[in-house]
Amino acid sequence: MSSQAKAGDDAPYELIYWPGLPGRGELVRVLFEEAGVPYTDSAKGARDDAVSAVLGYISPDNEGDANNPPVFAPPILKHGSLVLHQSSNILLYLAPRLGLAPAPGDPGLLHLNQIVLTILDGLVSEVHETHHPVAVSAVYEDQKPEAKRRSRAFRDERLPKYLGYLQRLLDAKTSGQGPWLYRDQLTYADLVLFQSVDGTLYAFPKTMDKLKRSGKYAGVFELYDAVKQRPNIKAYLASDRRAAYSGGIWRCYPELEED
Amino acid sequence: MSSQAKAGDDAPYELIYWPGLPGRGELVRVLFEEAGVPYTDSAKGARDDAVSAVLGYISPDNEGDANNPPVFAPPILKHGSLVLHQSSNILLYLAPRLGLAPAPGDPGLLHLNQIVLTILDGLVSEVHETHHPVAVSAVYEDQKPEAKRRSRAFRDERLPKYLGYLQRLLDAKTSGQGPWLYRDQLTYADLVLFQSVDGTLYAFPKTMDKLKRSGKYAGVFELYDAVKQRPNIKAYLASDRRAAYSGGIWRCYPELEED
Repeated sequence: MSSQAKAGDDAPYELIYWPGLPGRGELVRVLFEEAGVPYTDSAKGARDDAVSAVLGYISPDNEGDANNPPVFAPPILKHGSLVLHQSSNILLYLAPRLGLAPAPGDPGLLHLNQIVLTILDGLVSEVHETHHPVAVSAVYEDQKPEAKRRSRAFRDERLPKYLGYLQRLLDAKTSGQGPWLYRDQLTYADLVLFQSVDGTLYAFPKTMDKLKRSGKYAGVFELYDAVKQRPNIKAYLASDRRAAYSGGIWRCYPELEED
Repeated sequence: MSSQAKAGDDAPYELIYWPGLPGRGELVRVLFEEAGVPYTDSAKGARDDAVSAVLGYISPDNEGDANNPPVFAPPILKHGSLVLHQSSNILLYLAPRLGLAPAPGDPGLLHLNQIVLTILDGLVSEVHETHHPVAVSAVYEDQKPEAKRRSRAFRDERLPKYLGYLQRLLDAKTSGQGPWLYRDQLTYADLVLFQSVDGTLYAFPKTMDKLKRSGKYAGVFELYDAVKQRPNIKAYLASDRRAAYSGGIWRCYPELEED
Protein backbone atom coordinates (compact mmCIF):
# COMPACT_ATOMS: atom_id res chain seq x y z
CA MET A 1 0.00 0.00 0.00
CA SER A 2 3.08 2.20 0.32
CA SER A 3 3.16 5.15 -2.06
CA GLN A 4 5.66 5.27 -4.89
CA ALA A 5 5.80 9.04 -4.60
CA LYS A 6 9.02 10.22 -3.07
CA ALA A 7 9.59 13.32 -1.06
CA GLY A 8 11.85 15.53 -3.12
CA ASP A 9 14.44 16.39 -0.53
CA ASP A 10 16.67 18.47 -2.75
CA ALA A 11 13.89 19.67 -5.04
CA PRO A 12 12.45 23.18 -4.76
CA TYR A 13 9.17 23.71 -2.95
CA GLU A 14 6.49 24.83 -5.42
CA LEU A 15 3.24 26.44 -4.23
CA ILE A 16 0.36 26.59 -6.68
CA TYR A 17 -2.44 28.97 -5.71
CA TRP A 18 -4.84 31.59 -7.10
CA PRO A 19 -3.28 35.00 -7.73
CA GLY A 20 -4.35 38.34 -6.29
CA LEU A 21 -5.41 37.48 -2.74
CA PRO A 22 -3.89 35.84 0.35
CA GLY A 23 -6.46 33.03 0.73
CA ARG A 24 -5.50 29.59 1.99
CA GLY A 25 -2.21 29.85 0.08
CA GLU A 26 -1.11 32.23 2.83
CA LEU A 27 -1.26 29.42 5.39
CA VAL A 28 1.52 27.72 3.43
CA ARG A 29 3.53 30.86 2.67
CA VAL A 30 3.91 31.85 6.32
CA LEU A 31 5.73 28.56 7.00
CA PHE A 32 8.20 29.10 4.16
CA GLU A 33 8.73 32.70 5.16
CA GLU A 34 9.30 32.02 8.87
CA ALA A 35 11.68 29.17 8.03
CA GLY A 36 13.52 31.29 5.47
CA VAL A 37 13.22 28.52 2.91
CA PRO A 38 13.10 29.33 -0.83
CA TYR A 39 9.90 28.44 -2.68
CA THR A 40 8.28 29.24 -5.97
CA ASP A 41 4.78 30.71 -5.94
CA SER A 42 2.57 30.40 -9.02
CA ALA A 43 0.47 33.33 -7.79
CA LYS A 44 3.39 35.71 -8.37
CA GLY A 45 3.62 35.20 -12.12
CA ALA A 46 1.46 36.85 -14.77
CA ARG A 47 -2.18 36.62 -13.72
CA ASP A 48 -3.30 34.45 -16.64
CA ASP A 49 -0.45 32.01 -16.11
CA ALA A 50 -1.23 31.83 -12.42
CA VAL A 51 -4.89 31.05 -13.06
CA SER A 52 -3.95 28.46 -15.69
CA ALA A 53 -1.57 26.75 -13.29
CA VAL A 54 -4.39 26.14 -10.80
CA LEU A 55 -6.95 25.22 -13.46
CA GLY A 56 -4.53 22.70 -14.94
CA TYR A 57 -4.46 20.82 -11.66
CA ILE A 58 -8.16 20.93 -10.79
CA SER A 59 -9.51 20.28 -14.29
CA PRO A 60 -11.71 17.16 -14.53
CA ASP A 61 -9.36 16.06 -17.31
CA ASN A 62 -6.39 15.94 -14.95
CA GLU A 63 -6.10 12.39 -13.68
CA GLY A 64 -2.99 12.95 -11.60
CA ASP A 65 -0.10 10.62 -12.39
CA ALA A 66 1.22 7.22 -11.35
CA ASN A 67 2.43 8.66 -8.05
CA ASN A 68 -0.19 11.25 -7.17
CA PRO A 69 -4.00 11.25 -7.08
CA PRO A 70 -5.78 14.12 -8.85
CA VAL A 71 -6.18 17.37 -6.92
CA PHE A 72 -9.52 18.70 -5.65
CA ALA A 73 -8.66 22.33 -4.96
CA PRO A 74 -5.73 24.67 -4.25
CA PRO A 75 -3.51 25.28 -2.37
CA ILE A 76 -1.32 22.66 -4.03
CA LEU A 77 2.25 21.80 -3.05
CA LYS A 78 4.67 20.19 -5.45
CA HIS A 79 7.94 18.91 -4.02
CA GLY A 80 9.98 16.72 -6.31
CA SER A 81 7.60 14.08 -7.63
CA LEU A 82 5.16 14.52 -4.75
CA VAL A 83 1.94 16.53 -5.20
CA LEU A 84 -0.29 17.32 -2.19
CA HIS A 85 -3.46 19.31 -1.61
CA GLN A 86 -5.69 20.26 1.36
CA SER A 87 -4.13 23.04 3.48
CA SER A 88 -3.75 21.11 6.73
CA ASN A 89 -2.26 18.17 4.84
CA ILE A 90 0.35 20.31 3.10
CA LEU A 91 1.30 21.81 6.45
CA LEU A 92 1.53 18.34 8.04
CA TYR A 93 4.13 17.47 5.41
CA LEU A 94 6.06 20.74 5.51
CA ALA A 95 6.16 21.59 9.19
CA PRO A 96 8.44 18.75 10.38
CA ARG A 97 10.80 19.40 7.44
CA LEU A 98 10.99 23.10 8.24
CA GLY A 99 11.69 22.66 11.95
CA LEU A 100 8.18 23.79 12.88
CA ALA A 101 6.83 20.50 14.27
CA PRO A 102 8.00 17.15 15.63
CA ALA A 103 8.62 14.29 13.18
CA PRO A 104 5.84 12.14 11.70
CA GLY A 105 4.92 9.40 14.18
CA ASP A 106 5.45 11.68 17.20
CA PRO A 107 2.17 12.29 19.03
CA GLY A 108 3.13 15.96 19.22
CA LEU A 109 2.57 16.29 15.47
CA LEU A 110 -0.97 14.94 15.91
CA HIS A 111 -1.61 17.44 18.70
CA LEU A 112 -0.47 20.25 16.44
CA ASN A 113 -2.56 18.90 13.57
CA GLN A 114 -5.71 18.87 15.72
CA ILE A 115 -5.04 22.45 16.82
CA VAL A 116 -4.51 23.53 13.19
CA LEU A 117 -7.67 21.75 12.03
CA THR A 118 -9.67 23.53 14.74
CA ILE A 119 -8.26 26.95 13.80
CA LEU A 120 -9.00 26.29 10.11
CA ASP A 121 -12.59 25.30 10.97
CA GLY A 122 -13.21 28.34 13.12
CA LEU A 123 -11.23 31.24 11.65
CA VAL A 124 -11.04 30.21 7.99
CA SER A 125 -13.97 28.02 6.90
CA GLU A 126 -16.51 29.64 9.22
CA VAL A 127 -15.34 33.12 8.21
CA HIS A 128 -15.91 32.16 4.57
CA GLU A 129 -19.40 30.94 5.45
CA THR A 130 -20.29 34.38 6.86
CA HIS A 131 -20.39 35.89 3.37
CA HIS A 132 -21.44 32.72 1.52
CA PRO A 133 -23.91 30.96 3.81
CA VAL A 134 -26.27 29.48 1.21
CA ALA A 135 -24.44 29.10 -2.10
CA VAL A 136 -20.74 29.14 -2.93
CA SER A 137 -21.69 29.58 -6.57
CA ALA A 138 -23.71 32.77 -5.98
CA VAL A 139 -22.15 36.15 -5.29
CA TYR A 140 -22.33 37.71 -1.84
CA GLU A 141 -24.80 40.31 -3.08
CA ASP A 142 -27.31 37.52 -3.75
CA GLN A 143 -27.22 36.23 -0.17
CA LYS A 144 -26.94 39.35 1.97
CA PRO A 145 -29.82 38.71 4.40
CA GLU A 146 -28.58 35.19 5.06
CA ALA A 147 -25.02 36.50 5.41
CA LYS A 148 -26.16 39.01 8.03
CA ARG A 149 -27.78 36.28 10.05
CA ARG A 150 -24.81 33.93 9.79
CA SER A 151 -22.43 36.77 10.67
CA ARG A 152 -24.42 37.62 13.80
CA ALA A 153 -24.13 34.02 15.00
CA PHE A 154 -20.44 34.04 14.10
CA ARG A 155 -19.73 37.26 15.99
CA ASP A 156 -21.81 36.44 19.04
CA GLU A 157 -21.23 32.71 19.42
CA ARG A 158 -18.77 31.00 17.14
CA LEU A 159 -15.88 33.46 17.18
CA PRO A 160 -15.88 33.79 20.99
CA LYS A 161 -16.11 30.00 21.26
CA TYR A 162 -13.04 29.47 19.06
CA LEU A 163 -11.02 32.29 20.66
CA GLY A 164 -11.97 30.86 24.06
CA TYR A 165 -10.66 27.47 23.03
CA LEU A 166 -7.40 28.97 21.78
CA GLN A 167 -7.02 30.78 25.12
CA ARG A 168 -7.68 27.45 26.90
CA LEU A 169 -4.84 25.94 24.86
CA LEU A 170 -2.55 28.76 25.97
CA ASP A 171 -3.58 28.33 29.61
CA ALA A 172 -2.99 24.58 29.47
CA LYS A 173 0.08 22.77 30.79
CA THR A 174 1.00 21.70 27.26
CA SER A 175 1.55 25.28 26.11
CA GLY A 176 4.83 25.68 28.00
CA GLN A 177 6.24 28.92 29.43
CA GLY A 178 6.41 31.09 26.32
CA PRO A 179 3.67 32.69 24.23
CA TRP A 180 3.25 29.57 22.03
CA LEU A 181 0.35 27.17 21.69
CA TYR A 182 2.33 23.96 22.19
CA ARG A 183 5.43 23.43 24.34
CA ASP A 184 8.22 26.00 24.46
CA GLN A 185 8.96 26.68 20.81
CA LEU A 186 7.15 28.36 17.97
CA THR A 187 5.37 25.77 15.81
CA TYR A 188 3.38 25.92 12.62
CA ALA A 189 0.20 26.05 14.71
CA ASP A 190 1.29 29.50 15.90
CA LEU A 191 1.82 30.61 12.30
CA VAL A 192 -1.62 29.30 11.32
CA LEU A 193 -3.13 31.14 14.29
CA PHE A 194 -1.36 34.33 13.22
CA GLN A 195 -2.64 34.21 9.65
CA SER A 196 -6.16 33.22 10.69
CA VAL A 197 -6.43 35.93 13.32
CA ASP A 198 -4.96 38.45 10.86
CA GLY A 199 -7.62 37.59 8.28
CA THR A 200 -10.37 37.75 10.90
CA LEU A 201 -9.11 41.17 12.06
CA TYR A 202 -9.50 42.35 8.48
CA ALA A 203 -12.97 40.85 8.03
CA PHE A 204 -14.47 41.75 11.42
CA PRO A 205 -12.38 44.64 12.80
CA LYS A 206 -14.95 46.06 15.23
CA THR A 207 -15.90 42.67 16.59
CA MET A 208 -12.28 41.65 17.07
CA ASP A 209 -11.51 44.96 18.75
CA LYS A 210 -14.36 44.41 21.21
CA LEU A 211 -13.23 40.86 21.90
CA LYS A 212 -9.65 42.01 22.39
CA ARG A 213 -10.72 44.71 24.84
CA SER A 214 -12.71 42.16 26.86
CA GLY A 215 -9.35 40.83 28.05
CA LYS A 216 -10.64 37.26 27.89
CA TYR A 217 -8.36 36.25 25.04
CA ALA A 218 -5.24 38.20 25.99
CA GLY A 219 -2.91 35.30 25.25
CA VAL A 220 -4.32 34.86 21.75
CA PHE A 221 -3.67 38.49 20.83
CA GLU A 222 -0.21 38.40 22.47
CA LEU A 223 0.66 35.35 20.39
CA TYR A 224 -0.60 37.11 17.27
CA ASP A 225 1.67 40.07 18.06
CA ALA A 226 4.63 37.81 18.88
CA VAL A 227 4.43 36.12 15.48
CA LYS A 228 3.99 39.45 13.72
CA GLN A 229 7.25 40.65 15.26
CA ARG A 230 9.31 37.63 14.20
CA PRO A 231 12.04 39.09 11.95
CA ASN A 232 11.25 36.91 8.92
CA ILE A 233 7.49 37.42 9.24
CA LYS A 234 7.93 41.16 9.72
CA ALA A 235 10.07 41.36 6.59
CA TYR A 236 7.57 39.26 4.68
CA LEU A 237 4.58 41.41 5.66
CA ALA A 238 6.47 44.51 4.46
CA SER A 239 7.44 42.89 1.16
CA ASP A 240 5.56 42.76 -2.12
CA ARG A 241 5.29 38.98 -1.71
CA ARG A 242 2.44 39.59 0.74
CA ALA A 243 -0.81 40.14 -1.18
CA ALA A 244 -3.39 42.62 0.12
CA TYR A 245 -6.74 41.23 1.28
CA SER A 246 -9.23 41.27 -1.55
CA GLY A 247 -12.06 38.80 -2.06
CA GLY A 248 -11.60 35.16 -1.20
CA ILE A 249 -12.07 34.01 2.38
CA TRP A 250 -11.39 37.16 4.37
CA ARG A 251 -13.54 40.05 3.13
CA CYS A 252 -14.56 43.21 4.87
CA TYR A 253 -18.27 43.99 4.49
CA PRO A 254 -19.03 46.60 7.18
CA GLU A 255 -22.73 45.69 7.19
CA LEU A 256 -21.87 42.23 8.50
CA GLU A 257 -20.79 43.85 11.75
CA GLU A 258 -24.08 45.69 12.19
CA ASP A 259 -27.06 44.15 13.96
CA MET B 1 9.36 19.96 20.91
CA SER B 2 8.64 16.24 21.03
CA SER B 3 5.49 15.29 22.89
CA GLN B 4 5.73 13.47 26.19
CA ALA B 5 2.49 11.64 25.37
CA LYS B 6 3.10 8.04 24.50
CA ALA B 7 1.03 5.89 22.22
CA GLY B 8 -0.51 3.23 24.44
CA ASP B 9 0.36 0.17 22.40
CA ASP B 10 -1.12 -2.39 24.75
CA ALA B 11 -3.82 -0.11 26.10
CA PRO B 12 -7.45 -0.40 24.96
CA TYR B 13 -8.80 2.02 22.39
CA GLU B 14 -11.44 4.27 23.98
CA LEU B 15 -13.87 6.28 21.85
CA ILE B 16 -15.73 9.13 23.54
CA TYR B 17 -18.73 10.44 21.59
CA TRP B 18 -22.33 11.64 22.00
CA PRO B 19 -24.89 8.85 22.46
CA GLY B 20 -27.96 8.13 20.34
CA LEU B 21 -26.77 8.92 16.79
CA PRO B 22 -24.00 7.84 14.43
CA GLY B 23 -22.44 11.29 13.87
CA ARG B 24 -18.72 11.74 13.41
CA GLY B 25 -18.09 8.99 15.96
CA GLU B 26 -19.11 6.58 13.22
CA LEU B 27 -16.09 7.57 11.14
CA VAL B 28 -13.93 6.12 13.91
CA ARG B 29 -16.09 3.08 14.65
CA VAL B 30 -15.98 1.77 11.08
CA LEU B 31 -12.18 1.50 11.34
CA PHE B 32 -12.32 -0.53 14.54
CA GLU B 33 -15.09 -2.71 13.17
CA GLU B 34 -13.40 -3.44 9.84
CA ALA B 35 -10.11 -4.21 11.61
CA GLY B 36 -11.86 -6.37 14.21
CA VAL B 37 -10.10 -4.53 17.00
CA PRO B 38 -11.74 -4.23 20.43
CA TYR B 39 -12.65 -0.75 21.61
CA THR B 40 -14.75 0.83 24.29
CA ASP B 41 -17.46 3.31 23.24
CA SER B 42 -18.78 5.85 25.73
CA ALA B 43 -21.94 6.25 23.63
CA LYS B 44 -23.01 2.72 24.49
CA GLY B 45 -23.32 3.27 28.25
CA ALA B 46 -26.25 4.86 30.07
CA ARG B 47 -27.27 8.03 28.27
CA ASP B 48 -26.46 10.41 31.12
CA ASP B 49 -23.05 8.87 31.62
CA ALA B 50 -22.34 9.09 27.90
CA VAL B 51 -23.25 12.78 27.79
CA SER B 52 -21.19 13.45 30.93
CA ALA B 53 -18.17 11.73 29.41
CA VAL B 54 -18.18 14.15 26.46
CA LEU B 55 -18.98 17.22 28.56
CA GLY B 56 -16.13 16.34 30.91
CA TYR B 57 -13.68 16.67 28.05
CA ILE B 58 -15.04 19.76 26.35
CA SER B 59 -15.81 21.77 29.49
CA PRO B 60 -13.95 25.10 29.67
CA ASP B 61 -12.69 23.89 33.06
CA ASN B 62 -10.87 20.97 31.47
CA GLU B 63 -7.30 22.08 30.87
CA GLY B 64 -6.09 18.77 29.48
CA ASP B 65 -3.05 17.35 31.26
CA ALA B 66 0.75 17.50 31.06
CA ASN B 67 0.70 15.31 27.94
CA ASN B 68 -2.43 16.39 26.12
CA PRO B 69 -3.92 19.75 25.17
CA PRO B 70 -7.61 20.35 26.02
CA VAL B 71 -10.20 19.01 23.62
CA PHE B 72 -12.42 21.21 21.43
CA ALA B 73 -15.15 18.75 20.41
CA PRO B 74 -15.88 15.03 20.07
CA PRO B 75 -15.11 12.50 18.69
CA ILE B 76 -12.29 11.96 21.16
CA LEU B 77 -9.89 9.02 21.18
CA LYS B 78 -8.03 7.91 24.29
CA HIS B 79 -5.28 5.36 23.82
CA GLY B 80 -3.07 4.83 26.84
CA SER B 81 -1.95 8.28 27.95
CA LEU B 82 -2.65 9.84 24.55
CA VAL B 83 -5.81 11.90 23.94
CA LEU B 84 -6.71 13.10 20.43
CA HIS B 85 -9.61 14.95 18.83
CA GLN B 86 -10.66 16.08 15.31
CA SER B 87 -12.01 13.18 13.23
CA SER B 88 -9.40 13.20 10.48
CA ASN B 89 -6.62 13.45 13.07
CA ILE B 90 -7.89 10.45 15.04
CA LEU B 91 -8.07 8.46 11.81
CA LEU B 92 -4.54 9.53 10.86
CA TYR B 93 -3.32 7.98 14.11
CA LEU B 94 -5.44 4.85 13.98
CA ALA B 95 -5.31 3.83 10.32
CA PRO B 96 -1.60 2.87 10.14
CA ARG B 97 -1.93 0.93 13.43
CA LEU B 98 -4.95 -0.98 12.15
CA GLY B 99 -3.41 -1.95 8.81
CA LEU B 100 -5.59 0.53 6.94
CA ALA B 101 -2.89 2.97 5.76
CA PRO B 102 0.87 3.21 5.22
CA ALA B 103 3.07 4.24 8.14
CA PRO B 104 3.55 7.88 9.23
CA GLY B 105 6.19 9.49 7.05
CA ASP B 106 5.07 7.59 3.92
CA PRO B 107 3.64 10.01 1.32
CA GLY B 108 0.80 7.50 0.83
CA LEU B 109 -0.57 8.41 4.25
CA LEU B 110 -0.67 12.09 3.20
CA HIS B 111 -2.51 11.16 0.01
CA LEU B 112 -5.07 9.24 2.04
CA ASN B 113 -5.36 12.11 4.50
CA GLN B 114 -6.10 14.62 1.72
CA ILE B 115 -8.78 12.29 0.30
CA VAL B 116 -10.34 11.89 3.74
CA LEU B 117 -10.29 15.65 4.38
CA THR B 118 -12.04 16.24 1.06
CA ILE B 119 -14.73 13.64 1.80
CA LEU B 120 -15.28 15.12 5.26
CA ASP B 121 -15.64 18.60 3.75
CA GLY B 122 -18.11 17.52 1.10
CA LEU B 123 -20.21 14.72 2.55
CA VAL B 124 -20.06 15.54 6.25
CA SER B 125 -19.54 19.26 6.95
CA GLU B 126 -21.47 20.47 3.89
CA VAL B 127 -24.33 18.05 4.63
CA HIS B 128 -24.53 19.50 8.13
CA GLU B 129 -24.64 23.01 6.66
CA THR B 130 -27.72 22.09 4.58
CA HIS B 131 -29.92 22.04 7.71
CA HIS B 132 -27.95 24.61 9.71
CA PRO B 133 -26.83 27.24 7.20
CA VAL B 134 -27.07 30.35 9.37
CA ALA B 135 -26.76 29.37 13.05
CA VAL B 136 -25.50 26.20 14.68
CA SER B 137 -27.11 27.39 17.90
CA ALA B 138 -30.61 27.71 16.40
CA VAL B 139 -32.85 24.74 15.61
CA TYR B 140 -33.49 23.73 12.01
CA GLU B 141 -37.08 24.97 12.25
CA ASP B 142 -35.76 28.51 12.73
CA GLN B 143 -33.74 28.47 9.50
CA LYS B 144 -35.91 26.55 7.05
CA PRO B 145 -35.93 29.03 4.13
CA GLU B 146 -32.15 29.35 4.30
CA ALA B 147 -31.83 25.56 4.59
CA LYS B 148 -33.90 25.10 1.44
CA ARG B 149 -31.66 27.44 -0.48
CA ARG B 150 -28.45 25.89 0.80
CA SER B 151 -29.82 22.39 0.07
CA ARG B 152 -30.65 23.32 -3.51
CA ALA B 153 -27.06 24.46 -4.08
CA PHE B 154 -25.80 21.31 -2.36
CA ARG B 155 -27.95 18.99 -4.47
CA ASP B 156 -27.35 20.75 -7.78
CA GLU B 157 -23.73 21.79 -7.46
CA ARG B 158 -21.74 20.71 -4.45
CA LEU B 159 -22.77 17.06 -4.19
CA PRO B 160 -22.18 16.34 -7.91
CA LYS B 161 -18.85 18.15 -7.64
CA TYR B 162 -17.66 15.99 -4.75
CA LEU B 163 -18.99 12.74 -6.24
CA GLY B 164 -17.32 13.70 -9.52
CA TYR B 165 -14.03 14.17 -7.73
CA LEU B 166 -14.35 10.81 -5.99
CA GLN B 167 -15.01 9.20 -9.37
CA ARG B 168 -11.91 10.97 -10.74
CA LEU B 169 -9.92 9.41 -7.91
CA LEU B 170 -11.25 5.98 -8.87
CA ASP B 171 -10.45 6.54 -12.55
CA ALA B 172 -6.90 7.67 -11.73
CA LYS B 173 -3.78 5.54 -12.01
CA THR B 174 -3.27 5.72 -8.25
CA SER B 175 -6.50 3.81 -7.53
CA GLY B 176 -5.13 0.45 -8.65
CA GLN B 177 -7.11 -2.40 -10.16
CA GLY B 178 -9.68 -3.06 -7.45
CA PRO B 179 -12.66 -1.01 -6.33
CA TRP B 180 -10.59 1.04 -3.85
CA LEU B 181 -9.69 4.73 -3.84
CA TYR B 182 -5.94 4.29 -3.41
CA ARG B 183 -3.72 1.46 -4.66
CA ASP B 184 -4.88 -2.16 -4.52
CA GLN B 185 -6.03 -2.56 -0.94
CA LEU B 186 -8.89 -1.28 1.13
CA THR B 187 -7.79 1.74 3.18
CA TYR B 188 -9.45 3.91 5.76
CA ALA B 189 -10.36 6.38 3.00
CA ASP B 190 -12.71 3.72 1.60
CA LEU B 191 -14.33 3.30 5.02
CA VAL B 192 -14.76 7.06 5.35
CA LEU B 193 -16.29 7.17 1.88
CA PHE B 194 -18.67 4.35 2.84
CA GLN B 195 -19.90 6.07 6.01
CA SER B 196 -20.18 9.49 4.36
CA VAL B 197 -22.10 8.16 1.36
CA ASP B 198 -24.30 6.10 3.69
CA GLY B 199 -25.22 9.20 5.68
CA THR B 200 -25.84 11.21 2.52
CA LEU B 201 -28.10 8.43 1.18
CA TYR B 202 -30.13 8.77 4.37
CA ALA B 203 -30.28 12.57 4.21
CA PHE B 204 -30.88 13.03 0.46
CA PRO B 205 -32.32 9.71 -0.80
CA LYS B 206 -34.06 11.02 -3.92
CA THR B 207 -31.10 13.14 -4.97
CA MET B 208 -28.65 10.31 -4.44
CA ASP B 209 -30.88 7.91 -6.36
CA LYS B 210 -30.97 10.33 -9.30
CA LEU B 211 -27.20 10.78 -9.19
CA LYS B 212 -26.66 7.03 -8.99
CA ARG B 213 -28.94 6.43 -11.99
CA SER B 214 -27.01 9.03 -14.01
CA GLY B 215 -24.21 6.44 -14.20
CA LYS B 216 -21.60 9.17 -13.82
CA TYR B 217 -20.44 8.00 -10.41
CA ALA B 218 -20.70 4.24 -10.89
CA GLY B 219 -17.37 3.54 -9.20
CA VAL B 220 -18.35 5.50 -6.10
CA PHE B 221 -21.54 3.48 -5.60
CA GLU B 222 -19.70 0.22 -6.35
CA LEU B 223 -17.12 1.07 -3.72
CA TYR B 224 -19.91 1.87 -1.28
CA ASP B 225 -21.44 -1.56 -1.93
CA ALA B 226 -18.08 -3.31 -1.71
CA VAL B 227 -17.43 -1.89 1.77
CA LYS B 228 -20.98 -2.70 2.88
CA GLN B 229 -20.39 -6.35 1.96
CA ARG B 230 -17.13 -6.70 3.88
CA PRO B 231 -17.86 -9.41 6.47
CA ASN B 232 -16.95 -7.33 9.51
CA ILE B 233 -18.82 -4.26 8.27
CA LYS B 234 -21.87 -6.34 7.37
CA ALA B 235 -21.92 -7.89 10.83
CA TYR B 236 -21.47 -4.47 12.39
CA LEU B 237 -24.33 -2.89 10.47
CA ALA B 238 -26.63 -5.73 11.58
CA SER B 239 -25.56 -5.42 15.23
CA ASP B 240 -26.96 -3.24 17.98
CA ARG B 241 -23.62 -1.41 18.07
CA ARG B 242 -24.71 0.52 14.96
CA ALA B 243 -26.94 3.46 15.98
CA ALA B 244 -29.87 4.47 13.76
CA TYR B 245 -29.69 7.88 12.08
CA SER B 246 -31.39 10.49 14.23
CA GLY B 247 -30.45 14.16 14.41
CA GLY B 248 -26.83 15.19 14.25
CA ILE B 249 -25.16 15.61 10.87
CA TRP B 250 -27.23 13.32 8.63
CA ARG B 251 -30.94 14.18 8.93
CA CYS B 252 -33.75 13.44 6.54
CA TYR B 253 -36.01 16.44 5.94
CA PRO B 254 -38.01 15.61 2.78
CA GLU B 255 -38.67 19.28 2.07
CA LEU B 256 -34.94 19.83 1.53
CA GLU B 257 -35.20 17.68 -1.60
CA GLU B 258 -38.04 19.76 -3.06
CA ASP B 259 -37.46 22.81 -5.21
